[in-house]
Amino acid sequence: MKIITISREFGSGGREIGKRLADLLGFDYYDREIIVEIAKNRNLDENYVEEVLENKNWHNFPLTYSRSFTLNNPQISMLTEQKKVVEKIANLNRDCVIVGRNSDVILEDKNPFKIFVYASKDAKIERIKTRMNENTSLKEIEKQIQRIDKNRRRTHELLSDIPWGNPRGYNLCIDTSNWDIKNLSLALKEFIKCYWEGKNED
Amino acid sequence: MKIITISREFGSGGREIGKRLADLLGFDYYDREIIVEIAKNRNLDENYVEEVLENKNWHNFPLTYSRSFTLNNPQISMLTEQKKVVEKIANLNRDCVIVGRNSDVILEDKNPFKIFVYASKDAKIERIKTRMNENTSLKEIEKQIQRIDKNRRRTHELLSDIPWGNPRGYNLCIDTSNWDIKNLSLALKEFIKCYWEGKNED
Repeated sequence: MKIITISREFGSGGREIGKRLADLLGFDYYDREIIVEIAKNRNLDENYVEEVLENKNWHNFPLTYSRSFTLNNPQISMLTEQKKVVEKIANLNRDCVIVGRNSDVILEDKNPFKIFVYASKDAKIERIKTRMNENTSLKEIEKQIQRIDKNRRRTHELLSDIPWGNPRGYNLCIDTSNWDIKNLSLALKEFIKCYWEGKNED
Repeated sequence: MKIITISREFGSGGREIGKRLADLLGFDYYDREIIVEIAKNRNLDENYVEEVLENKNWHNFPLTYSRSFTLNNPQISMLTEQKKVVEKIANLNRDCVIVGRNSDVILEDKNPFKIFVYASKDAKIERIKTRMNENTSLKEIEKQIQRIDKNRRRTHELLSDIPWGNPRGYNLCIDTSNWDIKNLSLALKEFIKCYWEGKNED
Protein backbone atom coordinates (compact mmCIF):
# COMPACT_ATOMS: atom_id res chain seq x y z
CA MET A 1 0.00 0.00 0.00
CA LYS A 2 1.22 3.49 -0.89
CA ILE A 3 0.13 6.56 1.04
CA ILE A 4 0.80 10.20 0.18
CA THR A 5 0.06 12.77 2.87
CA ILE A 6 -0.20 16.45 2.04
CA SER A 7 0.23 19.07 4.73
CA ARG A 8 -0.23 22.60 3.51
CA GLU A 9 -0.37 26.26 4.36
CA PHE A 10 -3.80 27.76 3.82
CA GLY A 11 -4.03 29.07 0.26
CA SER A 12 -0.95 27.25 -1.04
CA GLY A 13 -2.90 24.94 -3.38
CA GLY A 14 -2.24 21.75 -1.40
CA ARG A 15 -5.79 20.47 -1.65
CA GLU A 16 -5.85 20.83 -5.43
CA ILE A 17 -2.45 19.10 -5.67
CA GLY A 18 -3.81 16.24 -3.55
CA LYS A 19 -6.91 15.81 -5.69
CA ARG A 20 -4.94 15.93 -8.93
CA LEU A 21 -2.26 13.53 -7.66
CA ALA A 22 -4.94 11.05 -6.60
CA ASP A 23 -6.57 11.30 -10.05
CA LEU A 24 -3.25 10.93 -11.89
CA LEU A 25 -2.17 7.94 -9.83
CA GLY A 26 -5.59 6.31 -9.55
CA PHE A 27 -5.41 6.53 -5.74
CA ASP A 28 -8.26 7.05 -3.29
CA TYR A 29 -8.56 10.62 -2.08
CA TYR A 30 -9.44 11.85 1.41
CA ASP A 31 -9.97 15.36 2.58
CA ARG A 32 -13.41 16.52 3.71
CA GLU A 33 -14.50 12.88 3.81
CA ILE A 34 -12.67 12.64 7.15
CA ILE A 35 -14.66 15.53 8.62
CA VAL A 36 -17.88 13.87 7.46
CA GLU A 37 -16.90 10.59 9.12
CA ILE A 38 -15.93 12.27 12.40
CA ALA A 39 -19.27 14.09 12.42
CA LYS A 40 -21.15 10.87 11.77
CA ASN A 41 -19.31 8.90 14.45
CA ARG A 42 -19.78 11.59 17.09
CA ASN A 43 -23.27 12.53 15.98
CA LEU A 44 -22.24 16.12 15.32
CA ASP A 45 -22.82 18.62 12.56
CA GLU A 46 -20.12 18.52 9.82
CA ASN A 47 -19.70 22.28 9.82
CA TYR A 48 -19.27 22.28 13.57
CA VAL A 49 -16.54 19.61 13.34
CA GLU A 50 -14.75 21.58 10.63
CA GLU A 51 -15.09 24.78 12.62
CA VAL A 52 -13.60 23.19 15.73
CA LEU A 53 -10.72 21.47 13.89
CA GLU A 54 -9.79 24.35 11.61
CA ASN A 55 -10.97 27.61 13.08
CA LYS A 56 -11.23 27.45 16.86
CA ASN A 57 -8.54 28.79 19.08
CA TRP A 58 -6.31 25.86 19.97
CA HIS A 59 -4.08 27.78 22.32
CA ASN A 60 -5.74 26.97 25.60
CA PHE A 61 -4.26 23.54 26.26
CA PRO A 62 -1.16 23.04 28.32
CA LEU A 63 0.94 20.83 26.01
CA THR A 64 1.78 18.25 28.67
CA TYR A 65 -1.87 17.62 29.46
CA SER A 66 -3.19 17.71 25.93
CA ARG A 67 -0.59 15.25 24.58
CA SER A 68 -2.04 12.62 26.86
CA PHE A 69 -5.45 13.06 25.22
CA THR A 70 -7.19 12.36 28.50
CA LEU A 71 -8.86 15.73 28.87
CA ASN A 72 -12.58 15.57 28.61
CA ASN A 73 -12.75 18.37 26.09
CA PRO A 74 -14.63 18.55 22.76
CA GLN A 75 -11.56 19.66 20.79
CA ILE A 76 -9.24 16.96 22.13
CA SER A 77 -12.00 14.43 21.81
CA MET A 78 -12.40 15.40 18.16
CA LEU A 79 -8.66 14.96 17.57
CA THR A 80 -8.94 11.48 19.04
CA GLU A 81 -11.80 10.69 16.69
CA GLN A 82 -9.80 12.13 13.77
CA LYS A 83 -6.95 9.76 14.61
CA LYS A 84 -9.34 6.79 14.61
CA VAL A 85 -10.83 7.77 11.25
CA VAL A 86 -7.40 8.27 9.61
CA GLU A 87 -6.20 4.93 10.96
CA LYS A 88 -9.35 3.27 9.66
CA ILE A 89 -8.60 4.67 6.18
CA ALA A 90 -5.07 3.27 6.30
CA ASN A 91 -6.42 -0.09 7.41
CA LEU A 92 -8.42 -0.33 4.19
CA ASN A 93 -5.00 -1.15 2.73
CA ARG A 94 -5.61 0.83 -0.47
CA ASP A 95 -3.28 3.36 -2.13
CA CYS A 96 -4.44 6.83 -1.15
CA VAL A 97 -3.74 10.53 -0.88
CA ILE A 98 -4.77 12.21 2.38
CA VAL A 99 -4.86 15.99 2.64
CA GLY A 100 -4.32 17.48 6.09
CA ARG A 101 -5.84 16.01 9.28
CA ASN A 102 -2.36 15.35 10.74
CA SER A 103 -2.29 12.16 8.72
CA ASP A 104 1.49 12.56 8.24
CA VAL A 105 2.00 12.06 11.97
CA ILE A 106 -0.83 9.60 12.60
CA LEU A 107 0.35 7.25 9.82
CA GLU A 108 4.11 7.66 10.38
CA ASP A 109 4.58 3.89 10.83
CA LYS A 110 3.02 3.19 7.41
CA ASN A 111 5.88 5.12 5.73
CA PRO A 112 3.77 7.57 3.78
CA PHE A 113 5.41 9.92 1.28
CA LYS A 114 4.96 13.15 3.23
CA ILE A 115 4.66 16.44 1.35
CA PHE A 116 4.53 19.94 2.82
CA VAL A 117 3.15 22.61 0.50
CA TYR A 118 3.78 26.32 1.09
CA ALA A 119 3.83 29.58 -0.87
CA SER A 120 4.66 33.25 -0.56
CA LYS A 121 2.08 35.42 1.19
CA ASP A 122 1.23 37.19 -2.08
CA ALA A 123 0.70 33.94 -3.96
CA LYS A 124 -1.56 32.62 -1.19
CA ILE A 125 -3.64 35.79 -1.13
CA GLU A 126 -4.08 35.63 -4.92
CA ARG A 127 -5.27 32.04 -4.71
CA ILE A 128 -7.64 32.64 -1.80
CA LYS A 129 -9.18 35.70 -3.52
CA THR A 130 -10.42 33.56 -6.39
CA ARG A 131 -12.65 31.54 -4.06
CA MET A 132 -13.84 34.36 -1.81
CA ASN A 133 -16.72 36.79 -2.04
CA GLU A 134 -15.26 39.72 -3.95
CA ASN A 135 -16.05 42.04 -1.05
CA THR A 136 -13.68 40.19 1.27
CA SER A 137 -10.98 42.63 2.30
CA LEU A 138 -7.26 41.92 2.10
CA LYS A 139 -7.11 42.29 5.86
CA GLU A 140 -9.76 39.61 6.35
CA ILE A 141 -7.86 37.23 4.06
CA GLU A 142 -4.61 37.84 5.95
CA LYS A 143 -6.37 37.22 9.26
CA GLN A 144 -7.85 34.00 7.95
CA ILE A 145 -4.43 32.76 6.76
CA GLN A 146 -2.98 33.50 10.18
CA ARG A 147 -5.82 31.89 12.11
CA ILE A 148 -6.02 28.68 10.08
CA ASP A 149 -2.27 28.12 9.89
CA LYS A 150 -1.89 28.84 13.60
CA ASN A 151 -4.40 26.08 14.32
CA ARG A 152 -2.71 23.67 11.95
CA ARG A 153 0.58 24.37 13.68
CA ARG A 154 -1.02 23.92 17.08
CA THR A 155 -2.86 20.67 16.43
CA HIS A 156 0.33 19.29 14.85
CA GLU A 157 2.23 20.25 17.98
CA LEU A 158 -0.18 18.20 20.06
CA LEU A 159 0.83 15.09 18.13
CA SER A 160 4.49 15.52 17.14
CA ASP A 161 7.81 16.81 18.45
CA ILE A 162 8.75 18.12 15.00
CA PRO A 163 7.19 21.54 14.35
CA TRP A 164 4.60 21.85 11.57
CA GLY A 165 6.34 22.91 8.34
CA ASN A 166 9.82 21.89 9.52
CA PRO A 167 11.44 19.96 6.62
CA ARG A 168 12.54 17.22 9.00
CA GLY A 169 8.92 16.07 9.22
CA TYR A 170 8.50 15.58 5.46
CA ASN A 171 10.03 13.82 2.45
CA LEU A 172 9.50 16.90 0.31
CA CYS A 173 8.61 20.57 0.82
CA ILE A 174 7.44 22.58 -2.19
CA ASP A 175 6.96 26.29 -2.70
CA THR A 176 4.02 26.51 -5.12
CA SER A 177 4.34 30.28 -5.72
CA ASN A 178 5.72 30.11 -9.26
CA TRP A 179 3.98 26.93 -10.36
CA ASP A 180 0.83 26.22 -12.27
CA ILE A 181 -0.80 23.63 -9.97
CA LYS A 182 -1.80 21.31 -12.82
CA ASN A 183 1.77 21.30 -14.11
CA LEU A 184 3.19 20.83 -10.61
CA SER A 185 0.89 17.86 -9.96
CA LEU A 186 2.13 16.13 -13.12
CA ALA A 187 5.77 16.80 -12.15
CA LEU A 188 5.12 15.52 -8.64
CA LYS A 189 3.49 12.34 -9.86
CA GLU A 190 6.63 11.45 -11.83
CA PHE A 191 8.90 12.41 -8.93
CA ILE A 192 7.06 10.24 -6.42
CA LYS A 193 6.89 7.33 -8.83
CA CYS A 194 10.71 7.47 -9.10
CA TYR A 195 10.90 7.39 -5.31
CA TRP A 196 8.77 4.28 -5.03
CA GLU A 197 10.39 2.51 -7.95
CA GLY A 198 13.82 3.15 -6.42
CA LYS A 199 12.65 1.79 -3.09
CA ASN A 200 11.27 -1.39 -4.62
CA GLU A 201 14.67 -2.07 -6.14
CA ASP A 202 16.26 -2.14 -2.66
CA MET B 1 20.10 31.83 -18.14
CA LYS B 2 19.02 29.14 -15.67
CA ILE B 3 20.68 28.73 -12.29
CA ILE B 4 20.18 25.94 -9.78
CA THR B 5 21.56 26.48 -6.29
CA ILE B 6 21.99 23.61 -3.88
CA SER B 7 22.24 24.22 -0.16
CA ARG B 8 22.79 21.10 1.86
CA GLU B 9 23.36 19.57 5.24
CA PHE B 10 26.78 17.97 5.56
CA GLY B 11 26.52 14.33 4.51
CA SER B 12 23.13 14.62 2.81
CA GLY B 13 24.46 13.99 -0.70
CA GLY B 14 23.89 17.53 -1.99
CA ARG B 15 27.23 17.79 -3.75
CA GLU B 16 26.68 14.55 -5.67
CA ILE B 17 23.17 15.69 -6.63
CA GLY B 18 24.61 18.97 -7.90
CA LYS B 19 27.27 17.27 -10.00
CA ARG B 20 24.80 14.77 -11.45
CA LEU B 21 22.17 17.43 -12.18
CA ALA B 22 24.77 19.53 -14.00
CA ASP B 23 25.83 16.51 -16.07
CA LEU B 24 22.24 15.53 -16.87
CA LEU B 25 21.26 19.06 -17.88
CA GLY B 26 24.53 19.98 -19.58
CA PHE B 27 25.00 22.89 -17.18
CA ASP B 28 28.26 24.31 -15.81
CA TYR B 29 29.04 23.11 -12.32
CA TYR B 30 30.57 25.09 -9.45
CA ASP B 31 31.59 23.88 -6.07
CA ARG B 32 35.24 23.79 -5.04
CA GLU B 33 36.03 25.97 -8.06
CA ILE B 34 34.77 28.92 -6.02
CA ILE B 35 37.20 28.19 -3.19
CA VAL B 36 40.04 28.00 -5.72
CA GLU B 37 39.08 31.37 -7.21
CA ILE B 38 38.80 33.05 -3.80
CA ALA B 39 42.25 31.70 -2.89
CA LYS B 40 43.71 32.97 -6.16
CA ASN B 41 42.18 36.44 -5.85
CA ARG B 42 43.30 36.89 -2.26
CA ASN B 43 46.62 35.13 -2.72
CA LEU B 44 45.80 32.54 -0.08
CA ASP B 45 46.13 28.81 0.20
CA GLU B 46 43.01 26.92 -1.00
CA ASN B 47 42.92 24.69 2.04
CA TYR B 48 43.11 27.73 4.30
CA VAL B 49 40.17 29.37 2.50
CA GLU B 50 38.13 26.18 2.79
CA GLU B 51 39.05 25.83 6.44
CA VAL B 52 37.97 29.39 7.23
CA LEU B 53 34.69 29.19 5.26
CA GLU B 54 33.66 25.72 6.39
CA ASN B 55 35.33 24.85 9.63
CA LYS B 56 36.18 27.92 11.69
CA ASN B 57 34.01 29.11 14.49
CA TRP B 58 31.73 31.78 13.06
CA HIS B 59 30.09 32.65 16.32
CA ASN B 60 32.17 35.65 17.29
CA PHE B 61 30.54 38.34 15.18
CA PRO B 62 27.77 40.53 16.48
CA LEU B 63 25.16 40.20 13.73
CA THR B 64 24.56 43.93 13.33
CA TYR B 65 28.23 44.61 12.70
CA SER B 66 28.92 41.64 10.51
CA ARG B 67 25.95 42.25 8.19
CA SER B 68 27.54 45.54 7.17
CA PHE B 69 30.63 43.67 5.99
CA THR B 70 32.84 46.53 7.08
CA LEU B 71 34.80 44.66 9.71
CA ASN B 72 38.40 44.25 8.82
CA ASN B 73 38.41 40.56 9.56
CA PRO B 74 39.72 37.66 7.47
CA GLN B 75 36.46 35.69 7.71
CA ILE B 76 34.19 38.56 6.71
CA SER B 77 36.66 39.59 4.05
CA MET B 78 36.52 36.08 2.64
CA LEU B 79 32.71 36.16 2.55
CA THR B 80 32.95 39.40 0.58
CA GLU B 81 35.31 37.76 -1.89
CA GLN B 82 32.99 34.75 -2.10
CA LYS B 83 30.12 37.06 -3.03
CA LYS B 84 32.22 38.63 -5.80
CA VAL B 85 33.21 35.24 -7.22
CA VAL B 86 29.62 33.92 -7.19
CA GLU B 87 28.38 37.11 -8.90
CA LYS B 88 31.11 36.79 -11.50
CA ILE B 89 29.94 33.25 -12.27
CA ALA B 90 26.36 34.48 -12.72
CA ASN B 91 27.60 37.25 -14.99
CA LEU B 92 29.01 34.67 -17.39
CA ASN B 93 25.33 34.26 -18.30
CA ARG B 94 25.58 30.50 -18.69
CA ASP B 95 23.24 27.86 -17.26
CA CYS B 96 24.83 26.46 -14.12
CA VAL B 97 24.50 24.51 -10.88
CA ILE B 98 26.18 26.02 -7.83
CA VAL B 99 26.62 23.97 -4.67
CA GLY B 100 26.81 25.87 -1.39
CA ARG B 101 28.69 29.17 -0.96
CA ASN B 102 25.46 31.02 -0.06
CA SER B 103 24.79 31.32 -3.78
CA ASP B 104 21.03 31.01 -3.11
CA VAL B 105 21.10 34.32 -1.25
CA ILE B 106 23.77 36.06 -3.32
CA LEU B 107 21.96 35.35 -6.61
CA GLU B 108 18.39 35.86 -5.35
CA ASP B 109 17.69 38.51 -8.03
CA LYS B 110 18.60 36.08 -10.81
CA ASN B 111 15.66 33.82 -9.77
CA PRO B 112 17.64 30.61 -9.30
CA PHE B 113 15.82 27.36 -8.60
CA LYS B 114 16.84 26.95 -4.97
CA ILE B 115 17.09 23.47 -3.48
CA PHE B 116 17.75 22.53 0.13
CA VAL B 117 18.96 18.97 0.69
CA TYR B 118 18.76 17.26 4.08
CA ALA B 119 18.65 13.78 5.56
CA SER B 120 18.19 11.89 8.79
CA LYS B 121 21.21 11.78 11.10
CA ASP B 122 21.66 8.04 10.48
CA ALA B 123 21.59 8.45 6.71
CA LYS B 124 24.17 11.26 6.89
CA ILE B 125 26.49 9.23 9.11
CA GLU B 126 26.28 6.28 6.72
CA ARG B 127 27.17 8.49 3.76
CA ILE B 128 30.03 10.25 5.55
CA LYS B 129 31.51 6.96 6.72
CA THR B 130 32.09 5.83 3.15
CA ARG B 131 34.49 8.71 2.52
CA MET B 132 36.28 8.71 5.89
CA ASN B 133 39.25 6.83 7.20
CA GLU B 134 37.76 3.68 8.67
CA ASN B 135 39.24 4.55 12.06
CA THR B 136 37.11 7.69 12.33
CA SER B 137 34.83 7.26 15.32
CA LEU B 138 31.08 7.82 15.27
CA LYS B 139 31.60 10.62 17.77
CA GLU B 140 34.05 12.40 15.48
CA ILE B 141 31.61 12.16 12.56
CA GLU B 142 28.78 13.55 14.68
CA LYS B 143 30.99 16.42 15.83
CA GLN B 144 31.96 17.19 12.25
CA ILE B 145 28.31 17.26 11.15
CA GLN B 146 27.50 19.65 13.96
CA ARG B 147 30.47 21.94 13.34
CA ILE B 148 30.06 22.24 9.58
CA ASP B 149 26.29 22.70 9.63
CA LYS B 150 26.59 25.26 12.43
CA ASN B 151 28.94 27.29 10.24
CA ARG B 152 26.69 26.97 7.21
CA ARG B 153 23.79 28.21 9.32
CA ARG B 154 25.89 31.05 10.67
CA THR B 155 27.33 32.33 7.38
CA HIS B 156 23.82 32.17 5.91
CA GLU B 157 22.54 34.24 8.81
CA LEU B 158 25.09 36.92 7.98
CA LEU B 159 23.51 37.33 4.54
CA SER B 160 19.79 36.58 4.93
CA ASP B 161 16.85 37.13 7.27
CA ILE B 162 15.47 33.68 6.46
CA PRO B 163 17.18 30.98 8.55
CA TRP B 164 19.30 28.37 6.75
CA GLY B 165 17.15 25.31 6.00
CA ASN B 166 13.83 27.14 6.45
CA PRO B 167 11.60 26.12 3.50
CA ARG B 168 10.67 29.74 2.88
CA GLY B 169 14.17 30.30 1.48
CA TYR B 170 13.93 27.56 -1.15
CA ASN B 171 11.78 26.35 -4.05
CA LEU B 172 12.21 22.75 -2.94
CA CYS B 173 13.48 20.90 0.14
CA ILE B 174 14.31 17.21 -0.19
CA ASP B 175 14.99 14.53 2.38
CA THR B 176 17.50 12.23 0.66
CA SER B 177 17.41 9.52 3.39
CA ASN B 178 15.45 6.91 1.42
CA TRP B 179 16.73 7.80 -2.05
CA ASP B 180 19.44 6.43 -4.24
CA ILE B 181 21.20 9.68 -5.24
CA LYS B 182 21.51 8.72 -8.90
CA ASN B 183 17.79 7.98 -9.07
CA LEU B 184 16.95 11.18 -7.17
CA SER B 185 19.06 13.28 -9.55
CA LEU B 186 17.18 11.90 -12.55
CA ALA B 187 13.82 12.56 -10.86
CA LEU B 188 14.93 16.09 -9.94
CA LYS B 189 16.06 16.87 -13.46
CA GLU B 190 12.58 16.10 -14.80
CA PHE B 191 10.91 18.01 -11.98
CA ILE B 192 12.95 21.18 -12.55
CA LYS B 193 12.47 20.97 -16.32
CA CYS B 194 8.70 21.00 -15.72
CA TYR B 195 9.13 24.08 -13.54
CA TRP B 196 11.00 25.98 -16.23
CA GLU B 197 8.77 24.83 -19.07
CA GLY B 198 5.72 25.95 -17.09
CA LYS B 199 7.30 29.35 -16.44
CA ASN B 200 8.13 29.89 -20.10
CA GLU B 201 4.49 29.34 -20.96
CA ASP B 202 3.47 32.24 -18.71
